[in-house]
Amino acid sequence: MDVLVIGAAGMVGRKLVEHIAAHPDCLGGDIRSLHLVDIVAPSAPAALSSIADCAAVDLSTAGTAEKLISRRPDLVFHLAAIVSGEAEADFDKGYRVNLDGSRDLFDAIRAEGQREPYRPRVVFASSIAVFGAPFPETIPDEFLTAPLTSYGAQKAITELLLADYSRRGVFDGIGIRLPTVCVRPGSPNKAASGFFSNILREPLVGIEAVLPVSEDVRHWFASPRSAVGFFVHGATLDLDRVGPRRNLTMPGLSATVGEEIAALQRVAGTKATSLIRREPDPVIMGIVAGWPTAFDASRAASLGFTAETSFDEIIRAHVEDELAGVI
Amino acid sequence: MDVLVIGAAGMVGRKLVEHIAAHPDCLGGDIRSLHLVDIVAPSAPAALSSIADCAAVDLSTAGTAEKLISRRPDLVFHLAAIVSGEAEADFDKGYRVNLDGSRDLFDAIRAEGQREPYRPRVVFASSIAVFGAPFPETIPDEFLTAPLTSYGAQKAITELLLADYSRRGVFDGIGIRLPTVCVRPGSPNKAASGFFSNILREPLVGIEAVLPVSEDVRHWFASPRSAVGFFVHGATLDLDRVGPRRNLTMPGLSATVGEEIAALQRVAGTKATSLIRREPDPVIMGIVAGWPTAFDASRAASLGFTAETSFDEIIRAHVEDELAGVI
Repeated sequence: MDVLVIGAAGMVGRKLVEHIAAHPDCLGGDIRSLHLVDIVAPSAPAALSSIADCAAVDLSTAGTAEKLISRRPDLVFHLAAIVSGEAEADFDKGYRVNLDGSRDLFDAIRAEGQREPYRPRVVFASSIAVFGAPFPETIPDEFLTAPLTSYGAQKAITELLLADYSRRGVFDGIGIRLPTVCVRPGSPNKAASGFFSNILREPLVGIEAVLPVSEDVRHWFASPRSAVGFFVHGATLDLDRVGPRRNLTMPGLSATVGEEIAALQRVAGTKATSLIRREPDPVIMGIVAGWPTAFDASRAASLGFTAETSFDEIIRAHVEDELAGVI
Repeated sequence: MDVLVIGAAGMVGRKLVEHIAAHPDCLGGDIRSLHLVDIVAPSAPAALSSIADCAAVDLSTAGTAEKLISRRPDLVFHLAAIVSGEAEADFDKGYRVNLDGSRDLFDAIRAEGQREPYRPRVVFASSIAVFGAPFPETIPDEFLTAPLTSYGAQKAITELLLADYSRRGVFDGIGIRLPTVCVRPGSPNKAASGFFSNILREPLVGIEAVLPVSEDVRHWFASPRSAVGFFVHGATLDLDRVGPRRNLTMPGLSATVGEEIAALQRVAGTKATSLIRREPDPVIMGIVAGWPTAFDASRAASLGFTAETSFDEIIRAHVEDELAGVI
């Protein structure tokens, strides 16, 4: 099969490609070609060098989607987006990339199928940002999508397009609503959610990290490893089992910051937890207060999507995948 | 104030304009101008002839929205859409008119506001078609929008845009999710929902009507008079009371076809009900089986939106408004 990954240079995109390199039959068939694109050129793992083709493309410019789709990939991972903060700061760019870029992609598939029958699988990275407060304590699968950010609106709109285009047979789409991914590898970033990862990742390598909220803040998490698992499962799942509601809240772990820290203590000891510096930040506390705390992701679970059930697991996955198993 | 009505030649649009003619202060201020547009030129009631300006325009063609908004109306009623059946039959036209037309309008308002501060009220005609089966028996205000038609998807997407543009201060929008409007005036049409009105309207003037479903079919209704009331209330309501969830399921009456017929019997006697010919149509029965039966429209009710509470009222409103009170 021919596979296209849009957004292959992002954190989850890179991990997805690495997973494919390590498990070449995870997508349920021989991979003939792997087209990896992003706004900056992605790189391909050595194991894939004979079949991978990497390019820097901007999905939001005219003609890009048509060009990508003219190769008729059987499977499209669509992970390209500008992030929440940028979509809020730049209204036009957010709608152009996150909404129009996605719609161009879907329309390019439709146009290709009108030339010659074509119906690829499309696995789309959505987000729990499609939901907006006020929430019930646990958000059910039938809860409304009333986002409170432009990013969330753009993701929710793309979900509606994905479901309608799928219903009409343009492609076989599935939308994966990612929990907050934790532990995020890399350097601390300025995202309001950064601290959830920072307070684990930095102390694990002996560096101090700042905790700007209280320990009773609760949120919804899955590891990068689980995120990759969601996309791989979404690529191979029998969509007849899913029916017309194609956008699924992924399973995750509802945990407090205190539970995060207790798990860090169990996995890495006081040596690590003593590196967490409490520095309450009212701005971040205000932002985080509007975030969901837990989901009942029954539908996704019944369809075989799985995630961690403790923060110990999440931390151990990080130690294995990012620190070669060494604390 | 200056008022723009897009879709002023449609059934609800015409009734809205007639209502404004009869109650010129219903919009909470003196009306200086009334711009009435539709795909065919609307006509203005005589009482409004000095302030009304009618034109045939196609909202989905480039530049149309900018032109309409260059007059800087204080209040915009956006009722323009192609109907469900046509949006399903013509994919491109549905998305072009129902989605792109709405987005062009919203973007024209944004562009106008960037030239010079401008923030009109926008009252948008949405639909219970944003919901898709399976449903609970009574659909709550927090139920997900998972439409099963392209029309429903286009309305749900426009709702998300309306909420996000409102949140960002581009305009003050409110989305009005109309129940099935009954009794629809005019001639019987081929819409699958037509019989709900046909079996009342036709017998009331001595004409036979066909009932293609069983009497236990339940659905969600409001009169054209209530529909007009929703738009007028949406135009004048304090939106701070509404908050960021700007799309509201309107109140209505949950009733079975049997209850419709019993009300017709009470209002117009056996002379009328004997004109209903039962002719079960499996296709229509199948379509209608996927429709919602009842909503808990608590939010809209708490914000002062009202509708009929019995089919007797709905029929009497029709007799008063369409038959000059004479059966």
